[in-house]
Amino acid sequence: MNNIVYLDNSATTKPCVKAVEYINNALCENWGNPSSLHLMGMNAEIAVSEARGSVATFLHCREDEIFFTSCGTESNNTAIMSIKYKKHNGKRIITTAIEHPSVLEPIKALEKEGYEVIYLHPDKSGVISLEELKSNLNSDTCLVSIMLVNNEIGSIQPIIEAAELTKRIAPNALFHTDAVQAFGKLPINLQKTKIDLLSASGHKIHGPKGIGILYKRKGVNISPLLLGGGQEKNLRSGTECVPLICGLKGAIDEIGSAEKLYQKQKELFDYAHCKLCELDFIKFNSNSECIPYIINISVPGYRSEVLQHFLERKNIFVSSGSACAKGELSYVLREIEASAIEIDGALRLSFSRYNTNDDVDSFCSALCEAVSVLKKSI
Amino acid sequence: MNNIVYLDNSATTKPCVKAVEYINNALCENWGNPSSLHLMGMNAEIAVSEARGSVATFLHCREDEIFFTSCGTESNNTAIMSIKYKKHNGKRIITTAIEHPSVLEPIKALEKEGYEVIYLHPDKSGVISLEELKSNLNSDTCLVSIMLVNNEIGSIQPIIEAAELTKRIAPNALFHTDAVQAFGKLPINLQKTKIDLLSASGHKIHGPKGIGILYKRKGVNISPLLLGGGQEKNLRSGTECVPLICGLKGAIDEIGSAEKLYQKQKELFDYAHCKLCELDFIKFNSNSECIPYIINISVPGYRSEVLQHFLERKNIFVSSGSACAKGELSYVLREIEASAIEIDGALRLSFSRYNTNDDVDSFCSALCEAVSVLKKSI
Repeated sequence: MNNIVYLDNSATTKPCVKAVEYINNALCENWGNPSSLHLMGMNAEIAVSEARGSVATFLHCREDEIFFTSCGTESNNTAIMSIKYKKHNGKRIITTAIEHPSVLEPIKALEKEGYEVIYLHPDKSGVISLEELKSNLNSDTCLVSIMLVNNEIGSIQPIIEAAELTKRIAPNALFHTDAVQAFGKLPINLQKTKIDLLSASGHKIHGPKGIGILYKRKGVNISPLLLGGGQEKNLRSGTECVPLICGLKGAIDEIGSAEKLYQKQKELFDYAHCKLCELDFIKFNSNSECIPYIINISVPGYRSEVLQHFLERKNIFVSSGSACAKGELSYVLREIEASAIEIDGALRLSFSRYNTNDDVDSFCSALCEAVSVLKKSI
Repeated sequence: MNNIVYLDNSATTKPCVKAVEYINNALCENWGNPSSLHLMGMNAEIAVSEARGSVATFLHCREDEIFFTSCGTESNNTAIMSIKYKKHNGKRIITTAIEHPSVLEPIKALEKEGYEVIYLHPDKSGVISLEELKSNLNSDTCLVSIMLVNNEIGSIQPIIEAAELTKRIAPNALFHTDAVQAFGKLPINLQKTKIDLLSASGHKIHGPKGIGILYKRKGVNISPLLLGGGQEKNLRSGTECVPLICGLKGAIDEIGSAEKLYQKQKELFDYAHCKLCELDFIKFNSNSECIPYIINISVPGYRSEVLQHFLERKNIFVSSGSACAKGELSYVLREIEASAIEIDGALRLSFSRYNTNDDVDSFCSALCEAVSVLKKSI
């Protein structure tokens, strides 16, 4: 597939050159099992350790605070399910109504087991209220899980303040954030936060699918989800997936400075926002303060699948919802009070560092054509 | 690393040419998210589906009975932990004392939660007794988990008969087998067995690390371990790792016929066995009926780590235990009543389809040299 305009980078990204190169080195040269006690094992272990170092440097934390998992979903599940095994723990969980299913589903499972779950509802801009969090925190709270960036609308939650509030009012509660859509995009300095647990993933930042990160602050004790050979200091058993761990390092190395990338990306985002503002038939679902990687719009009167397929025929790829929702009506858009007709006509554009202004232009002109060619569905 | 003699294939294997090729195609060309509703998602989904078909054909089962996980450990954990969520279930688990830690550890966790666990002990050849299994099966049995091939000594358990016994005496119990060391090596025809759940892994058969298989017989209901976006028909959430799924297909495609490969491998194994028999200073820990991929020997009076490092300097790689045990004394060898001095001097040779008779010769002459050069440790 050449000459495509891929604007679905929050679903997944194309692995970058460095990621592919590092993966191939681990597949073809450094293919030992890090647990083997001979030289080939040691070499593989060194590669894993170097990747751990890159992630730690990137997130401004210690190397021994970084654990590799198989995906963001596993990181989220590990973080959330771990509270079951904490002794003398409370029974209240606080989260938001717009978390990713890999946070909501394990929390629902805990709810069925008797945990009390408070769902914070965002305002129309997709942001939760710290006051509401504060009023729900109590000594019975064992876990607060709030995503950093929403995967559908890109809204940024005030997690630094939320973590501080949590630690002040409910010091025994764990504070977890699903940072899958933020990692590698928003600069994150974990040293300066009170976050206990953070989940991230490789394939949203031009790394490979199949690699996740769990940050666990030193001193925080949690139980593993996968039990066995005791890899990852017993937090995640299973032979380390050296190729994808190296591929993740490749993606991070290629980003270099998260701060610089953010500035560059903001320019593309501002251009896109400006161009989209010229289209009088759309409505913005994302707020202007969202991450400069996601713009969620609605074309009221048109079905998003129809628009998506029209664009697809021109080699332009966007999402009609989050990839995980697979066509179901978006609960995130419902939460920010989008109307049924707006939800029906929603499209998510999600950018990466490889998108250009030309991609935006192609999308805008194709969307104009779609609106003039296609019949309104209502 | 060129010209190495790698005899540690039960720890991990070098990804084969087809595996690497398929992985790269999925990294560089077919890199969409299978959950995306556009063409790029569909293409990725087709690749996943084709790989599922290859696995199903290889194991003689239905495509909708194959689920992809991130590793053998995850498959084992998913299979075992799932019994917690089965209603009206018994509380007895039957397993063997020589399972892999990724089976033993979740079972120990269930034991702590109140399950009664029966550990079947193998005879000196490393094989459990069907009579003993029979006498322990009762209506309270909810799970029987018996590995197909042991990872340290290669003994083969009579799981076809064990599954039949289980279904006859305790029809509500699930029968699970950890087939990580058997998959792609012993021909397996699942249609002809009463196995409910089977775990396998890619990286023991020249596929990549980071990909596991869980076979779940149609009609068997189990709960997922990872909750979220509902991938893999809700049994394993998390974006499918398309590259490694394709890599696994590459490894299977390259095997072709498991039956033919078995015959070829048996010749190498017989050669190795014959050559090793000439060395009067070793003792065999594997029985002669074991899988033709693993030979566990002891060199009494020598420490295995010392031997391993001597061999390593000659670019010969073997294991001083299972990779997962990381140097701890082998509980498997204890179970087959090897003496302390034999356990201390144990080496595991594990072959793959790429080993040759020359590799065996190199190992034997290097081991002779080691024994003549090194001082006895006792």
